[in-house]
Amino acid sequence: MAKFLLFRAEDLKDYMVRFFVKLNVPQADAETAAEVLLSADLRGVDSHGIIRLNTYYGDRLRKGLIDPLSPVTVLQETPVSLALSGGNGMGQVVGKQAMLRAIEKARQIGMAMVTVRNSNHYGIAGYYAMMALQEDMIGISFTNSQPLVAPTYGRKAMLGTNPIAVAVPAGNERPYVLDMATSIVPIGRVTVYDKAGKPIPAGWGIDKDGAVTTNPSDVLKGGALMPLGGIDLMRGYKGYGLGLLVDIFSGVLSGAAFAANVAHPSSDGQFANVGHFFAAIRIDAFRPLAEFKQDMDAIIHQLKDSPKAVGQERIYIHGEKEFERAEHNQQVGVPLLEPVVKGLRESGKQIGVEFDLPLLGEKEEEE
Amino acid sequence: MAKFLLFRAEDLKDYMVRFFVKLNVPQADAETAAEVLLSADLRGVDSHGIIRLNTYYGDRLRKGLIDPLSPVTVLQETPVSLALSGGNGMGQVVGKQAMLRAIEKARQIGMAMVTVRNSNHYGIAGYYAMMALQEDMIGISFTNSQPLVAPTYGRKAMLGTNPIAVAVPAGNERPYVLDMATSIVPIGRVTVYDKAGKPIPAGWGIDKDGAVTTNPSDVLKGGALMPLGGIDLMRGYKGYGLGLLVDIFSGVLSGAAFAANVAHPSSDGQFANVGHFFAAIRIDAFRPLAEFKQDMDAIIHQLKDSPKAVGQERIYIHGEKEFERAEHNQQVGVPLLEPVVKGLRESGKQIGVEFDLPLLGEKEEEE
Repeated sequence: MAKFLLFRAEDLKDYMVRFFVKLNVPQADAETAAEVLLSADLRGVDSHGIIRLNTYYGDRLRKGLIDPLSPVTVLQETPVSLALSGGNGMGQVVGKQAMLRAIEKARQIGMAMVTVRNSNHYGIAGYYAMMALQEDMIGISFTNSQPLVAPTYGRKAMLGTNPIAVAVPAGNERPYVLDMATSIVPIGRVTVYDKAGKPIPAGWGIDKDGAVTTNPSDVLKGGALMPLGGIDLMRGYKGYGLGLLVDIFSGVLSGAAFAANVAHPSSDGQFANVGHFFAAIRIDAFRPLAEFKQDMDAIIHQLKDSPKAVGQERIYIHGEKEFERAEHNQQVGVPLLEPVVKGLRESGKQIGVEFDLPLLGEKEEEE
Repeated sequence: MAKFLLFRAEDLKDYMVRFFVKLNVPQADAETAAEVLLSADLRGVDSHGIIRLNTYYGDRLRKGLIDPLSPVTVLQETPVSLALSGGNGMGQVVGKQAMLRAIEKARQIGMAMVTVRNSNHYGIAGYYAMMALQEDMIGISFTNSQPLVAPTYGRKAMLGTNPIAVAVPAGNERPYVLDMATSIVPIGRVTVYDKAGKPIPAGWGIDKDGAVTTNPSDVLKGGALMPLGGIDLMRGYKGYGLGLLVDIFSGVLSGAAFAANVAHPSSDGQFANVGHFFAAIRIDAFRPLAEFKQDMDAIIHQLKDSPKAVGQERIYIHGEKEFERAEHNQQVGVPLLEPVVKGLRESGKQIGVEFDLPLLGEKEEEE
């Protein structure tokens, strides 16, 4: 059981804006970054939200490892494509700009893809893919990240947890929003088991020799995460292939760092040079939008209404749980773990932006 | 141990052409279909090659479930997009045409996507993605297929094994070619275990109640395959999400059948109305091709040269094993299982195109 403190979503966003502005991030950019981080906390993807405010952003801004004032520059452009450099600025800032440009181009010509190099951690991939939904387009976003996943038959972390996010509008139903790391679990999940002194399920990770281990600290100390699928018998090379695909689109096509070259600025003291990939696709380039939406509702109903496994009551569509969570958190407050709030109070003091938001309540819950 | 008979690749292709022509497939279309099927046997994806010549094609052509003479028609077109109807013809014929059109459009404008409805089984997805390699483009192909995979928490097969194929050119290294079903294994793998009386690994499939089973016949009789990832604890909902993604692009965006509506013509006596998706992307729309190829070689070297797990000697890039296999099979002959050859002899007699190719040799091997 863990204790969570509840805060109003708007208060958290406002706090993050003040935090970023204090660290020389321009007001509009601070709002963008805060919005992306808050969307993670709202959707229940806590690992990518305010918990990272200081470690991934505040700390790096203060050390000069992220440059909040550097402009985004265009490297190459055609009517359907755009290659940007983020100038080692905030990942959310160039990320949102890149996806807006992809949507704008797709509106003109039917589809567009945008690559970004020289960027930093951009938060949840799903945020950018979902931007396309308001325009009734399909949105796609990938990013590479610091190496944590070993290739099949390897023992060293060579690829990031490189997420794939795709958002597709439906009619009366909620949109389909896939937002998945290409590893089985994120490293944070292994840390939770390690702190709780519990073994991890066999297959999530390997030790320094490349052997499957159930000891979380073996994974954390010189081991690696396994790609989706896990061991060879369960076809983990497919997850490895998807992780590599994301790195090809995000790192190689963009001209950013890739594989083990993606830096972890906090420990390496280098610029991360993270790469991203974005795409927007107009549905009516292929068939009338109304027909498409009707069929999206139909495929969603078909799956949700299909017979359940014994002991199960509900089949989900991707993104559904997160939409419900966001509505709930918007109403009753965003839950933050007690130690997370403690960390925010400490970093807030250091930076001179006190974390003193009104508490909406508390709750105890399985982590 | 299983006995394989070896045949010259060109002889097999020539035989398949004669087989299709005898069933009223025009000469050029027969050559296309034979080429796609042979590419599977060459690459070691035996399940998608000549083994299906009669069951997936000959039988359906004879029953009028595939129309070999119906033209491909354009439903909608823009400079970057094209929606085709395959007119219930051979999947390989409309598939190759669709990918050629995607490449042609991408050559003009930078990228293009093509959807296909009213089609049939098109063989290996990788064939079409790889067509882009000759043009130094990235190629993508998806297809939906008859339902065999249950959604997470479900117990009924609702999605096909819906493959994802992506091909990316490299410099001096072989291209990256991902060609993966979004289930853990194809149904044919379960059949092999069933025939051998061996249990399957826990996680490949479920029984009619939705429970994981190691009995292959439970999967075959009213059960279902599991999506990549397997059980919930191993994040099988990601594989389920990828399978659904492929169906959205192949079935919903194209206006074809989707999910459990994709027919299995042999048992249902209906037109399959399979849907496909193709894309071609010019690399130089984002950065100079030579730089990209250099970085592709670098990421491939980084992964292959990374430390191996204890007991492993080699890390593979996707497509590498298949390229090596194709070179080998081209030289020493394509191995076909004895019962497969027996089946070819029988269907050849029925149709009046005797399977009497010269035998290059025999080999015994683990199946």
